[in-house]
Amino acid sequence: MKIGHVTEVEKETVQAQGSQGAGIQWLLSKRDGVPDFYMRLVSVEPGGIIPLHKHEVIHEMFIVKGKGAVLRPDGETPFEEGNFIYMPSNEVHGTRNTGNELLQFICCINVPPQQQ
Amino acid sequence: MKIGHVTEVEKETVQAQGSQGAGIQWLLSKRDGVPDFYMRLVSVEPGGIIPLHKHEVIHEMFIVKGKGAVLRPDGETPFEEGNFIYMPSNEVHGTRNTGNELLQFICCINVPPQQQ
Repeated sequence: MKIGHVTEVEKETVQAQGSQGAGIQWLLSKRDGVPDFYMRLVSVEPGGIIPLHKHEVIHEMFIVKGKGAVLRPDGETPFEEGNFIYMPSNEVHGTRNTGNELLQFICCINVPPQQQ
Repeated sequence: MKIGHVTEVEKETVQAQGSQGAGIQWLLSKRDGVPDFYMRLVSVEPGGIIPLHKHEVIHEMFIVKGKGAVLRPDGETPFEEGNFIYMPSNEVHGTRNTGNELLQFICCINVPPQQQ
């Protein structure tokens, strides 16, 4: 068993091009010896955004706090605490904080192909 | 993309033998066409418990609210909101609510062998 707390995990800047006010903490990943899939916590400040992008890995997300929206090429879908989202492989998507408080969500991914 | 909210998902009783006051909601799973791993929300009432058990699937957990403890054959480890836990395959474990409010945690598992 491994246990940790989010306050112990470094927050890295989200690298997707054009991202603003978005950080990511890798809670459980390759460095922990975790197989199959990884768990991250994403934080987006009010006004922050992760613009449209795509990738091979899937997302399974759970909104822990705050309000935001999933961005798609043809519009956006609002979400709030308690929403969960499945984003399939290679589907174009982004996220923005639409509220006045920090947006935080759990975002799990399958193991990236280059790490398999 | 699929989006849902926890309030729309049936809460099933946790079946592990001796469990009390524990419910599980399958947020993203086989019925949603989700590959690789599944996402559940587990809720344990004050005084509730999921006794020691083991299984082949792994757990990656994130404590959303409340206070509790991971049970092991030789003791227990407390946790609270913001803790994350990796439980390897076939490691004996359980959970109990040690606080006065509802305990809720995200619990992701790899796809059970019988569903692969």
